[in-house]
Amino acid sequence: MQVALIQQHYHGSKEETIAHTVTQIQAAANHGASLVVLQELHQTEYFCQSEDTKFFAYANSFKKDVAFWSQIAKKHNIVLVTSLFEKRTAGLYHNTAVVFEKDGSIAGKYRKMHIPDDPGFYEKFYFTPGDLGFEPIQTSVGKLGILICWDQWYPEAARIMTLKGAEVLIYPTAIGWFEEDSKEEKQRQLDAWITIQRSHAIANAIPVISCNRVGFESDASGVMKGTKFWGHSFICGTQGELLAHAKSEEDTILYANISHTRTKEVRDIWPFLRDRRIEAYKCLLKRYCDDR
Amino acid sequence: MQVALIQQHYHGSKEETIAHTVTQIQAAANHGASLVVLQELHQTEYFCQSEDTKFFAYANSFKKDVAFWSQIAKKHNIVLVTSLFEKRTAGLYHNTAVVFEKDGSIAGKYRKMHIPDDPGFYEKFYFTPGDLGFEPIQTSVGKLGILICWDQWYPEAARIMTLKGAEVLIYPTAIGWFEEDSKEEKQRQLDAWITIQRSHAIANAIPVISCNRVGFESDASGVMKGTKFWGHSFICGTQGELLAHAKSEEDTILYANISHTRTKEVRDIWPFLRDRRIEAYKCLLKRYCDDR
Repeated sequence: MQVALIQQHYHGSKEETIAHTVTQIQAAANHGASLVVLQELHQTEYFCQSEDTKFFAYANSFKKDVAFWSQIAKKHNIVLVTSLFEKRTAGLYHNTAVVFEKDGSIAGKYRKMHIPDDPGFYEKFYFTPGDLGFEPIQTSVGKLGILICWDQWYPEAARIMTLKGAEVLIYPTAIGWFEEDSKEEKQRQLDAWITIQRSHAIANAIPVISCNRVGFESDASGVMKGTKFWGHSFICGTQGELLAHAKSEEDTILYANISHTRTKEVRDIWPFLRDRRIEAYKCLLKRYCDDR
Repeated sequence: MQVALIQQHYHGSKEETIAHTVTQIQAAANHGASLVVLQELHQTEYFCQSEDTKFFAYANSFKKDVAFWSQIAKKHNIVLVTSLFEKRTAGLYHNTAVVFEKDGSIAGKYRKMHIPDDPGFYEKFYFTPGDLGFEPIQTSVGKLGILICWDQWYPEAARIMTLKGAEVLIYPTAIGWFEEDSKEEKQRQLDAWITIQRSHAIANAIPVISCNRVGFESDASGVMKGTKFWGHSFICGTQGELLAHAKSEEDTILYANISHTRTKEVRDIWPFLRDRRIEAYKCLLKRYCDDR
């Protein structure tokens, strides 16, 4: 099965950014991709660099956005993974991936469960943590374990998706460097980000698709300079082997063929699921195991 | 704090192998290491390549072995992580890491929790799964999260050790290739093994020390040719960055300086522990989440 992800920079406005994405989706469909993955909050700039109530306006169009991407999926006969700003009611918003079936119907949605909050990534201001749990979404191209950005640092999330039958893990994401960090620190952060996601493929013997934003975006508040989103989107196989890997500067479409049958082959030689010591894992449900 | 691990091949007999290990420990202590880690079942060949009751004889000396390594730790004034074949009573054996304090006292022990069983690695025949849980061991050089070989594939084990206060993860291990596997398959397996362990450092922001056996050992039963233990022992830092990395053929001592204070620095910028969704992790305690 051929899959594609679209790594792109913010094109200055929601309209121009969406227009670019649509041409890329068309190209991916023409190339033969049956699953197309977009990056986190792909319609706009990464507005969480500052806390400003004006940005909640982006979520007003959630229902329209869903209708729009639905017809794009249908037009190109693809399964499409989007990442949208969901307004549920006034004062209640989520960071939500909506997955569309080839006929444009909604296959399912995932609301980001782990919400970050650190300088330049003020997501706790904007997004209520997801309340749909870690539930894979059944589609015509397989059962998709959709997770979003900060989720990628949590082996728990990847494992639960796997135990619920996910056949591939998909991470729309928006991560980057501060320019003022040292070259060594940047390299450690990038390597860590790639490594942890490859490890989810390895621990669970399923492919991983990670689609990151690229390019510099300034901090609208002026408090910080801004973030250089580091690209490096990738697709890896069931042993964590890189099948396709983007660079750090360019808008690009990445393609790979992934195999659901490889999961069984790998699990037969490395049967990690067989030997989990579930009776000894209770501590995983605690905040910290200090008996407080 | 300087740490050392000793990667070595089997020297043809228990006596000669131990003699070699002792000279290496002396060298590591002279070099200034305050913590020395040995590989899995370092006293003998990796006997689990076949199922033969004769090998249980190796466990008869468990108490003597403990006394021996105790005096080595004391002599060199080091914290020492050993990996021994423990006879608990007739017909009840464990794969056990015994950790010695600088004065030769037993700081604690860990009985391997996840036991593999696949061609060439028939450990379920020899070892009862550990019943001490995942408990870090307090020593004068920090709280050590000792795990053994197959445990390294389980993010659950690394996380629990972390939640119980481990400051470093330590994996004595014995893993290798079958020569008949393709070059590509070998590379995927090696990369997966390094990647999953580095990911435990990243997810938990603590260093990882992984000490693997090296060299070819034939299958005593003659059923299979044997296993080429792939070495590649390594020490990585709190962001998974490689601090020291051994080659695939050589006996070697690896050294690195690891920092417990770096954990706080990294967790302050990437506070993964803050945001775990523990109320949504119940599935982790199930074998498989198919409601059966």
